[in-house]
Amino acid sequence: MPNLISDIPAKRRFTVGMIGGGHGSFFAGIHRAAMRLTGCFDVKAGVFSSNEAVSREAAEALGVIPERTYRTFRDMAEAESIRSDKIDVAVVVTPNHLHYEPCRLFLEAGIPVICDKPLVNTSGEAEALIDLAEKTELFAAVTYTYTGYPMVRDARARVQRGEIGEVKFLYVEYLLEWLANDPSKLGKGGLWRGDPGKAGLTGALGDVGTHAFNILEFVSSKRCVALNAKLSTTVDGFGLDDTGVVQMEFEGGAEGLLWCSLAAPGHRNGLRFKIVGSKGTLEWRQEQPETLHLSRMGQADLIYRRGASDMTEEGASCVSLPAGNPEAYLEALAVLYMDYASALEAGPNWRTIGKTPVTDLNEGLRGVLLSEICVRSSQTKMWQPFPKSRMWGDP
Amino acid sequence: MPNLISDIPAKRRFTVGMIGGGHGSFFAGIHRAAMRLTGCFDVKAGVFSSNEAVSREAAEALGVIPERTYRTFRDMAEAESIRSDKIDVAVVVTPNHLHYEPCRLFLEAGIPVICDKPLVNTSGEAEALIDLAEKTELFAAVTYTYTGYPMVRDARARVQRGEIGEVKFLYVEYLLEWLANDPSKLGKGGLWRGDPGKAGLTGALGDVGTHAFNILEFVSSKRCVALNAKLSTTVDGFGLDDTGVVQMEFEGGAEGLLWCSLAAPGHRNGLRFKIVGSKGTLEWRQEQPETLHLSRMGQADLIYRRGASDMTEEGASCVSLPAGNPEAYLEALAVLYMDYASALEAGPNWRTIGKTPVTDLNEGLRGVLLSEICVRSSQTKMWQPFPKSRMWGDP
Amino acid sequence: MPNLISDIPAKRRFTVGMIGGGHGSFFAGIHRAAMRLTGCFDVKAGVFSSNEAVSREAAEALGVIPERTYRTFRDMAEAESIRSDKIDVAVVVTPNHLHYEPCRLFLEAGIPVICDKPLVNTSGEAEALIDLAEKTELFAAVTYTYTGYPMVRDARARVQRGEIGEVKFLYVEYLLEWLANDPSKLGKGGLWRGDPGKAGLTGALGDVGTHAFNILEFVSSKRCVALNAKLSTTVDGFGLDDTGVVQMEFEGGAEGLLWCSLAAPGHRNGLRFKIVGSKGTLEWRQEQPETLHLSRMGQADLIYRRGASDMTEEGASCVSLPAGNPEAYLEALAVLYMDYASALEAGPNWRTIGKTPVTDLNEGLRGVLLSEICVRSSQTKMWQPFPKSRMWGDP
Amino acid sequence: MPNLISDIPAKRRFTVGMIGGGHGSFFAGIHRAAMRLTGCFDVKAGVFSSNEAVSREAAEALGVIPERTYRTFRDMAEAESIRSDKIDVAVVVTPNHLHYEPCRLFLEAGIPVICDKPLVNTSGEAEALIDLAEKTELFAAVTYTYTGYPMVRDARARVQRGEIGEVKFLYVEYLLEWLANDPSKLGKGGLWRGDPGKAGLTGALGDVGTHAFNILEFVSSKRCVALNAKLSTTVDGFGLDDTGVVQMEFEGGAEGLLWCSLAAPGHRNGLRFKIVGSKGTLEWRQEQPETLHLSRMGQADLIYRRGASDMTEEGASCVSLPAGNPEAYLEALAVLYMDYASALEAGPNWRTIGKTPVTDLNEGLRGVLLSEICVRSSQTKMWQPFPKSRMWGDP
Repeated sequence: MPNLISDIPAKRRFTVGMIGGGHGSFFAGIHRAAMRLTGCFDVKAGVFSSNEAVSREAAEALGVIPERTYRTFRDMAEAESIRSDKIDVAVVVTPNHLHYEPCRLFLEAGIPVICDKPLVNTSGEAEALIDLAEKTELFAAVTYTYTGYPMVRDARARVQRGEIGEVKFLYVEYLLEWLANDPSKLGKGGLWRGDPGKAGLTGALGDVGTHAFNILEFVSSKRCVALNAKLSTTVDGFGLDDTGVVQMEFEGGAEGLLWCSLAAPGHRNGLRFKIVGSKGTLEWRQEQPETLHLSRMGQADLIYRRGASDMTEEGASCVSLPAGNPEAYLEALAVLYMDYASALEAGPNWRTIGKTPVTDLNEGLRGVLLSEICVRSSQTKMWQPFPKSRMWGDP
Repeated sequence: MPNLISDIPAKRRFTVGMIGGGHGSFFAGIHRAAMRLTGCFDVKAGVFSSNEAVSREAAEALGVIPERTYRTFRDMAEAESIRSDKIDVAVVVTPNHLHYEPCRLFLEAGIPVICDKPLVNTSGEAEALIDLAEKTELFAAVTYTYTGYPMVRDARARVQRGEIGEVKFLYVEYLLEWLANDPSKLGKGGLWRGDPGKAGLTGALGDVGTHAFNILEFVSSKRCVALNAKLSTTVDGFGLDDTGVVQMEFEGGAEGLLWCSLAAPGHRNGLRFKIVGSKGTLEWRQEQPETLHLSRMGQADLIYRRGASDMTEEGASCVSLPAGNPEAYLEALAVLYMDYASALEAGPNWRTIGKTPVTDLNEGLRGVLLSEICVRSSQTKMWQPFPKSRMWGDP
Repeated sequence: MPNLISDIPAKRRFTVGMIGGGHGSFFAGIHRAAMRLTGCFDVKAGVFSSNEAVSREAAEALGVIPERTYRTFRDMAEAESIRSDKIDVAVVVTPNHLHYEPCRLFLEAGIPVICDKPLVNTSGEAEALIDLAEKTELFAAVTYTYTGYPMVRDARARVQRGEIGEVKFLYVEYLLEWLANDPSKLGKGGLWRGDPGKAGLTGALGDVGTHAFNILEFVSSKRCVALNAKLSTTVDGFGLDDTGVVQMEFEGGAEGLLWCSLAAPGHRNGLRFKIVGSKGTLEWRQEQPETLHLSRMGQADLIYRRGASDMTEEGASCVSLPAGNPEAYLEALAVLYMDYASALEAGPNWRTIGKTPVTDLNEGLRGVLLSEICVRSSQTKMWQPFPKSRMWGDP
Repeated sequence: MPNLISDIPAKRRFTVGMIGGGHGSFFAGIHRAAMRLTGCFDVKAGVFSSNEAVSREAAEALGVIPERTYRTFRDMAEAESIRSDKIDVAVVVTPNHLHYEPCRLFLEAGIPVICDKPLVNTSGEAEALIDLAEKTELFAAVTYTYTGYPMVRDARARVQRGEIGEVKFLYVEYLLEWLANDPSKLGKGGLWRGDPGKAGLTGALGDVGTHAFNILEFVSSKRCVALNAKLSTTVDGFGLDDTGVVQMEFEGGAEGLLWCSLAAPGHRNGLRFKIVGSKGTLEWRQEQPETLHLSRMGQADLIYRRGASDMTEEGASCVSLPAGNPEAYLEALAVLYMDYASALEAGPNWRTIGKTPVTDLNEGLRGVLLSEICVRSSQTKMWQPFPKSRMWGDP
């Protein structure tokens, strides 16, 4: 199976158009580094910024020709859609409130889309995109990076094969520290996250809570059916929630709990989950992504390890380096891009690649719903139902 | 300062009467081992079981003379109260529903009381005992063992001196696995915990949730003012909650979260807390009690260690062994008994010993209130207020 | 099986005479705390110091009557040997150079002996004591505390049952920090350890290297047959080695490596071993004594835990508290004293108690030989043979 | 400062010729992935295998034109040296015994060289290459990957600035497990490592011991001056040492110890070091490369973290991702390639780039000397002097 390292024989390559990602857009650089790592993608077109000079500078640095450096994503969708060498996929890395329009335009132009998380700011928009993607049968994905870690996929497979018995309780925490600094000193990067006009309905919940929620559903293959949230602002001057606690119920009766914060000093990117089953408990921490901890009734704990011979097929299939030569964050994102390459190659059958489903627009919708329903619950101080939806990969 | 090891010069010794603790009572043996460790207590009287033969066997093994081996705790309270060499303190280690009566009788008989946790099964009983203790000015304590760990006291002192800034979020989890086994195979020891007639209003919450709640209030020096609980039974056939989640609000606006379970495979005695402040976060785990983890904004984490020269005075004052020669559970309980010895020596001024307050009947009451209020919240699916009370050591 | 907690029915009790252990003798207090914990020993006689006032103070604190508070250990051996209630065992906790004489006198007086480690300062003395003990068939033991940890015994049993295959490499390190401080500020406690007249031939090697060596032989059930040592003094003004490295060969061809130091800042009592076999590797750390780490070829690591149901019989038989309620250093020493109680009860058959052999005078001899042979190797810069001897428990 | 992620503005790019690295050459793929990650290198020429078909397949996959796909490295050196667009650097990833010739030829042809580790198989060859590189003033480096980890560089800087006081003891271990399998089942990949004709003088020592030795000298900025080695074969049928222990002396009197093995089950790529100073101890583990552990006399341990604001300049300058988004092995190798890009840009002044010196041919020589001197020591069972050489970056 091809992995990040294998480069002989050559992999099939895909051309990319980028929306967003000029100088100063930190995560766009990470996306491009992950693409380089795969050896499957070439950026060939783009509108890298609403500021023309910034966009041109990016195009030049990335080797995009002036003809394919566009002023607006509307221009780009139109022009690319009629080229014989049109881009294979559009990668959308603009700020949150500028996701919907480009996604819609490129799908309408017949071009598959990879969109940064969160997908959009309202569930209505998300549903509109889902309809569009279903009608066009085009590949469309949301980059929930943490689902690219091999040990997260290994955890998912172990839950599915019953290694922890029946799932009883799903715990996740995602804590960051950056906002705990004097907020008056926050740079532009931080402040927009507290601005409802840009970040959307929620702060911490939308920014990191959605990742946490997504990983619980991904690993457990279960859907949340109800929740009770308390969103709080602990840092003066921040315009949205910086901390949230969500109690959840999952289908089949499992309980869940989510705690997220942007203002927890000492936490850099502190995502961790603990899935309690009737026979064992699985734990994983993003900052030590190479191992998965299985503890069992009265017996020795097991430390599973990326690259070991006892990995599940689902985990092993996205391993690139041997055990002991650690992989990390960039590899996880690159694993998603490897999936995207397979999906693009598969065309309309893109949902059937591999054993691990792609995090698609439906998952993007659920992230948006999480924000909307948590706000409702937090305001009413009441439990709220959460709409069920199909499982990944289900028709 | 005397510690568990120091035995020259001799420490002052106190005579103990035990209520409960015959053969088969596991935790009574732990209490006596802790007392032996202190070198301050001698069991001289008791009613060790409602079964006379069991009680006599225990008396013999413990060297208690027949004259002071009683048939009922009522007999014992009466007889001891008029002896010239009456016991200095009564230690109550009966099952939960048999705490109230002996506590009441001994206090009325003018004898101080040390009672196992939870104090009693209703807040009315707890309040009655508090009134009695205040009237008699007698020492009375509830054994919240985990408050005896040096690094827990160190954590409390560090919070008080502002090392993590303003307290923002209090997280605690307390997970055990024993109930996850086939419940039909549970021995007598387990089943009574699911029997409302014996265990009280709650199962997991009363058994371990109270410890978790107590340690949050102890470490933060803050009081819970409202909560929203969801109590669940995940194991078929268990008569009470085996799992609980409690969202909390603390005075001054801090948020809190408690998760407890008796049915989390892979967890033996998994109590851990994380206190998030505006400048740093403190974490401690009962199964690795020798260290306290302080993580800070963008800087190296600190691993504080029992016995190191940079401990707080509050923590250092209950250290017995040098750093590197680990202490553990028995030492923690023995630290409480060292406190009790100091308290007994202080007489009516017992509240003023040392910097760390004794976990007294008021803390016992709050444990009982926790069960009552969580049941109300869980049934109504609503937030409920939690009565404020004086802080430890406050008049 | 009786353990530290079980006290009903009563255990058989033994009377103890102490040699050494007056005020200021730190480790004597630890020995007494361990004895208290067992509930099997009562100090009834002693010469607690060469300073009469100090000795009397100790006797009083410990409840030893004046008649049995002796001026010299010669007086004590003579007087006790003819009492009808003579002590069951003499516990020797004097400084190293005062071990030989009391051990000899008590054995000659027909009284079993428990001696602190290192046994004596020359192999000739050790051999004389061995001869005496064999002739008299009296119980005699050396307190290698670390062999009392349940997970160390569990490790030994796992090696014996072939869980790691054939033993290939034995690594141990034992690092402390105290000497790294400005040595001019060392108190009396430290300075004698660098004084050849008191500490013996070696410094770090005799003080902690012997523990490290003992634990390797104990866990592997293998004997060192040759070694190549380099002893160094890294702290100016210390009169003996403060650091040592010893390459070793074990019977059957296994390799070994020992590193010890008294001057390694950041290490409190840093004893850890790693036993590499053909199928797996076992690791244990004294500062986290509750777990034993087994790593295997290409498979999940196993974390064995004290108190779990998958412990070996040898490990489980010395467990007192349930898993999750941690045990530590005092319990380990108390486990040895539980063994000693069994041995005293067994009389001449004391070597056959239980599955784990007592660390006897022969092990004491090997510790002394270690110092002598390492000095020879370090001076000649050559490999030196190490005398083979019988295995624990062998006739 | 440019890092792996920054791609706007564009970085200067260099053309690469590869010697070795056809299909089946695992580490060549890793080198190319690291180059892709930097965004600074393009493979434009090569002889990828002695097998022409294999070489052509690689050329095609990598987009190398037939004209620059050569049959021998002699042909390649000649042809490239006279092209106007000749390669900027030759990357040598052939098996060990085929390093010398291509390095020599390319340096003679005026083309800088990056050579996989170990440099060559005899110190004579290494010295010849050093002479050549000095004469030509060409950049030449050996890829000691582990020196590219930010926290290794951070450790080096902390030692240099005196954070642990005077260096006293240098410990390193490097353990792998692959050979512990039934050696009769070893594939071709493994067997050549035990073949003196291909692997060189030593097995484990040359393969991993050299990395371990290099990292000690790199982190401490100290040179080994004498050693005493014991090389062993613990796996039947392996033609060279699979296990080694090396005692060392460093300039200025520090002691050292190295343990390496290819046959330690449970170890995947187990490189870790511990540097003991007079004031503190630094520890780092390759499998958890994001943190550096500083333990100190009687004070809290510090866990330094990649990306934190308290990193040293030397460490921070090679960071690409924010703390919490972990980096790992590929990033470490890519950091070396970033250095190489800077060095190629600097031309004859390449030694003066940055604060961290490039691991050059002199370090390659020391790796070869390590094998030669350890063999001599192991055979004679005697200490042997180790030639001093200039420090990195020294003229």
